[in-house]
Amino acid sequence: MADGSILVVGSVALDEISTPFGRADEIIGGAAVYFSAAASLFAPVQLVGVVGDEYPLSDLDFLKARGVDLAGLEQRPGRSFRWGGTYHNDMNTRDTTHTELGVFAEFRPTLPETFRAAKWVFLGNIDPELQLSVLDQVEGPELTACDTMNYWIDGAHDALMKVIARIDMITLNDEEARQLSGHANLTRAGRWIQAKGPRHVVIKKGEHGAMLFSDDHVFFAPGYPLEDVVDPTGAGDAFAGGLFGYLARSGAAAVDDLRRAVVYGCALGSFSCEAFGPERMVDLTSDEVEDRVRSFRRLTRFTTAIDLASA
Amino acid sequence: MADGSILVVGSVALDEISTPFGRADEIIGGAAVYFSAAASLFAPVQLVGVVGDEYPLSDLDFLKARGVDLAGLEQRPGRSFRWGGTYHNDMNTRDTTHTELGVFAEFRPTLPETFRAAKWVFLGNIDPELQLSVLDQVEGPELTACDTMNYWIDGAHDALMKVIARIDMITLNDEEARQLSGHANLTRAGRWIQAKGPRHVVIKKGEHGAMLFSDDHVFFAPGYPLEDVVDPTGAGDAFAGGLFGYLARSGAAAVDDLRRAVVYGCALGSFSCEAFGPERMVDLTSDEVEDRVRSFRRLTRFTTAIDLASA
Repeated sequence: MADGSILVVGSVALDEISTPFGRADEIIGGAAVYFSAAASLFAPVQLVGVVGDEYPLSDLDFLKARGVDLAGLEQRPGRSFRWGGTYHNDMNTRDTTHTELGVFAEFRPTLPETFRAAKWVFLGNIDPELQLSVLDQVEGPELTACDTMNYWIDGAHDALMKVIARIDMITLNDEEARQLSGHANLTRAGRWIQAKGPRHVVIKKGEHGAMLFSDDHVFFAPGYPLEDVVDPTGAGDAFAGGLFGYLARSGAAAVDDLRRAVVYGCALGSFSCEAFGPERMVDLTSDEVEDRVRSFRRLTRFTTAIDLASA
Repeated sequence: MADGSILVVGSVALDEISTPFGRADEIIGGAAVYFSAAASLFAPVQLVGVVGDEYPLSDLDFLKARGVDLAGLEQRPGRSFRWGGTYHNDMNTRDTTHTELGVFAEFRPTLPETFRAAKWVFLGNIDPELQLSVLDQVEGPELTACDTMNYWIDGAHDALMKVIARIDMITLNDEEARQLSGHANLTRAGRWIQAKGPRHVVIKKGEHGAMLFSDDHVFFAPGYPLEDVVDPTGAGDAFAGGLFGYLARSGAAAVDDLRRAVVYGCALGSFSCEAFGPERMVDLTSDEVEDRVRSFRRLTRFTTAIDLASA
């Protein structure tokens, strides 16, 4: 059972999303929201972020009801972080139509006293300098992880490498892994990143699932074969939330726990794609999650019937 | 054990390949060669193809030694099919530097009498009209499959759809599946193709592995995490050879056999990438294949520890 809280630090946003399936405007979003919506199905979550004075805080009530502590969500005068994106017909590519940092530009994460003992610490995709400041504020975490993006890999490389040297796990997508490592081959990319610090490297591959490098183990989980991807926004953050949620729930992070955690991550990432924003996770049940994890087992399971070498 | 021979009809070529790892010129290649090199590790193979009078037939001796019957390999006056390709640094993209059809342009596959009873029939990527003519020549096969490419999807659509309506299985890559079906979503693409005829659709995803749609089942096998991809040429054909080889060896094609067959396919595809041309498969042993299949099991296996719904 649960072994302490999950801490997540990251963006809390208002999104405007267009896909071939429709359009949603002024809906709650941001990495910390998607992460919390997924992780709170498993364990208590402590969220650190910032919003402007126009943010519809009541839209986060479903998180509170699931045990997400919003004591670290600062509300400041000004506009909230806003992002807009339009997905192409293939749903695998999108254009960013606008990014408005608002109060997020001045975000300096300060952990409430009660958050400092969090056991499972996830640093969402923010300035690596801020990620370092959060690492300085936590006391004896069980596992620390960070996400990042091309913007920081290019523009804040040294600070990012300092973060990577200090954390236990990094989650990033395949293009980011290639960019960070300089290796087109994802196996080489994963091994290169491990050598820079983190024992565990998780490469998110969108429709192709995820890869885990943990010590000298490699594990793959496929993408769930959804026929209707309604909105992929935040799927990578929901993935991380499912992964962290599972680890916190199990209270352990040995390689077999991590393998299962990646599958729970893929399950939550797939649910997230089924509706606009984090909506699908609002009333998602544990039974639905367990059903999907069982489906994942069927997706990759095979048995040995004949053995060439001895036949 | 083996339940009849495998028949493969396809190109037998001379390739010129450049990769960041080096260069090979005038090496044996073509879909039927890669397929046979893989399949012959499992079961007898009957090859139908055509080469010019300059073809180094002795380079195919390793196939003969493994039970590949070359009675259907016609040698005609003229030049052999020649293909040249240069791989980019990421090894996932390549430029075709030349294609010279030679005697392959007039290829009209005629099955030797002893080949007509083949149980496992694989129609390599050739003109769909020729694929249809081969289907007319076989007698009571257990399973028929075809491969194809963008050239035929665009230029011989009606004939290709006739092939697809008649065969039991199609193997094609993800871009081809999207192009053929008009669906960007691979699950929709797979289901769409199944609805046109084949019970089994196998989508090859290169470094991301392969997906099998079989009746209402879906199965994923990952790409093997090779650190050094020396030459990806023919990997899809070696994949198909491993898949067909396993099916012929087991003598059955129920869904659990197909799942295992896809894993054997991924294993052979990965071996094929380890050296230029089909070279790695020349002295590949059954023990090495079985070792790799066991690795595939570890790559995707996870166990259930806690159940959210009951915890």
